[in-house]
Amino acid sequence: MKPTVAIVGIGLIGGSLGLALRKSKRYRVLGIARRPVTLVEARRLGAIDAGSTNLTDVYQADIVVLCMPVDDIVPVLEKLKPFLKPRAIVTDVGSVKGVLDQQVRGVRFVGAHPLAGSHKAGVKASRADLFQKAVCVLVPQDRSAVNAVRDLWQAAGARVLLMSARAHDAAVALTSHLPHLVAHALIHVAAGRRDQKVLQSLMAGSFRDATRVASSDPEQWVQIFQANAGDLRQAVRLFQRELNRLAAQLDRPSLRATMKKSQSYRLPLFDGL
Amino acid sequence: MKPTVAIVGIGLIGGSLGLALRKSKRYRVLGIARRPVTLVEARRLGAIDAGSTNLTDVYQADIVVLCMPVDDIVPVLEKLKPFLKPRAIVTDVGSVKGVLDQQVRGVRFVGAHPLAGSHKAGVKASRADLFQKAVCVLVPQDRSAVNAVRDLWQAAGARVLLMSARAHDAAVALTSHLPHLVAHALIHVAAGRRDQKVLQSLMAGSFRDATRVASSDPEQWVQIFQANAGDLRQAVRLFQRELNRLAAQLDRPSLRATMKKSQSYRLPLFDGL
Repeated sequence: MKPTVAIVGIGLIGGSLGLALRKSKRYRVLGIARRPVTLVEARRLGAIDAGSTNLTDVYQADIVVLCMPVDDIVPVLEKLKPFLKPRAIVTDVGSVKGVLDQQVRGVRFVGAHPLAGSHKAGVKASRADLFQKAVCVLVPQDRSAVNAVRDLWQAAGARVLLMSARAHDAAVALTSHLPHLVAHALIHVAAGRRDQKVLQSLMAGSFRDATRVASSDPEQWVQIFQANAGDLRQAVRLFQRELNRLAAQLDRPSLRATMKKSQSYRLPLFDGL
Repeated sequence: MKPTVAIVGIGLIGGSLGLALRKSKRYRVLGIARRPVTLVEARRLGAIDAGSTNLTDVYQADIVVLCMPVDDIVPVLEKLKPFLKPRAIVTDVGSVKGVLDQQVRGVRFVGAHPLAGSHKAGVKASRADLFQKAVCVLVPQDRSAVNAVRDLWQAAGARVLLMSARAHDAAVALTSHLPHLVAHALIHVAAGRRDQKVLQSLMAGSFRDATRVASSDPEQWVQIFQANAGDLRQAVRLFQRELNRLAAQLDRPSLRATMKKSQSYRLPLFDGL
C-alpha cells in the first residue's frame, strides 16, 4: 500500500508538493486545511486525494508535512502530536531551520527547506513542476527518518542536500534573506521621495527584478527575517562592506576589475539567465 | 522622401532601433559599424536598409543616432561632425546625460535615453519590440530638434518624456544605476567565501533576479557608473540608510508595517510582475 502523506497547510508550497507527489503515483496525499474552500480548490487542481479540516486526521499519515509560516510550525506540531501514528515522521518546509531544531522534541522530525517559491501565494498558484531541479535542504534531527523524507522530495523532483541547521541558516541569510531585505530597502529609497511619478517612469528591468521579492507576503517574511535575525544582520554587514568597497572605487580604475570579477562569477550560474 | 536615420554602432540598442524604425516604414535606416560582419548580420536580421563601415557616410543622414558606450559618444561625434549635413540632428542612447549636455557643442543635439535593454549584448540580441511601451527620456539641448527626435522614438514604440539632464541623472542613479551596483555587491558577498558550493546550491530565485544585471557588460557599466558617480554615491547613501533602518527593525514589531509599506508600493508597478 502507498504511504499516506498528510500536507498540513495548502498554499503555494503545500499545493505544489501535493501535485508533484500525486503525479509520482507513489503516495496517497491527504490535505489538511483550515478552510473547506481551500480543500475544494486543491481537489479541483488534483493536488490531494482526500481532504480534511480536522488536524486529528493526521492519524492516517505515515509522513506529515507542515506547510505553513515559520512561526506556526511549532504550535501546530504541538496540537497534532497527540494524534500521530507511533512511527509517523514529521517534516516541514520552513525557510529557517535553527529555531525548529532547538524547539521540536518528542517526534521523529526531519526539517526541510525546498528552495523554490514565488512572490505569488495560495493554492491556485500551485505547480506540479515547482520543485523540479530545485534544491531541498534536509536537517536530519532524527537520522532514522532521513531516507523517507529524502524519497519524498526526490519523488517531487527536488535535489536533496543534507546540512546542519546552523550552516543552512547562515547560507540562506546570504543567498535568500539578504536579497529580500535589499529589495525592500531599494523600494523605500524611492518611496520616500517627492518625485514619485518621474522615478516610477524611470524604473526599468533592473529595478523591477531587484525588487521583485518585495511583492512577497510580508507576514511570511517578517517571520523568516525575525527567526533568522542574527545571521541576517551578519549578512547585511558583509553586504554593506562590499557595497561601500564598490562605491569607493567609483572614481578608480580598479572598479573595472571588480565588476569583471562579479560578472564572471555570475555568468555560469542560473543557466545563463 | 523618407528621412534617413544613421545608426552609428549596431549592438542590441542600435539593432533593435533599426528593426523598429524599418517596421514603422517611416525612415530609411543606414547602419554604420566598425566591423563588416556586424553589417552583414544587421542586414540579415532586417535592422538596416544599407550599411557602411565609414563614418563619413553620415553625410546622407537627417538624423544621426549614436548607439555606443557613454565614453565613446563625444569622441565619435567629434570625428563625424565635419561630415554632417548642415541641418542634421544628432542624438544618442547613453544612460547618463549630464556629461553630454556639458560637452556637446556645435551641432543640433538632443540627448536621449531609452530605458530598455538586456544583460545580453550585440546585434544578434536585437528585437523589434524592445522599445514597445518603454520610456525614452529626451534632454532637449536644441529645442528646435526635439520634435524630430520625439517622432523617431515614438515610431519605435517608446513613450517620450522630456527632462533636464540633471533630473534624469539623479533619477536613474536611484532606479537603475543603484540596482546595478547592488547586484555586484550581492555577488561579491558570496564570491569571497570558502563555502562556495553550498552557497551556490542555495541561490534561488531571489538571488538570481537581484543579481541578473551583474551579468551585463562590465565595460559599458563602468563607464555609466563613473559618468554618474556623484549621483550614484548619493543613491548609495540613501540606500544604506534604508537598509540600516530595516536591519535595526529586525527584532521590532515595526518591521511588519515597514515591509507592508514597500509591498504595497511595489504591487501596482510592473503589471504585477
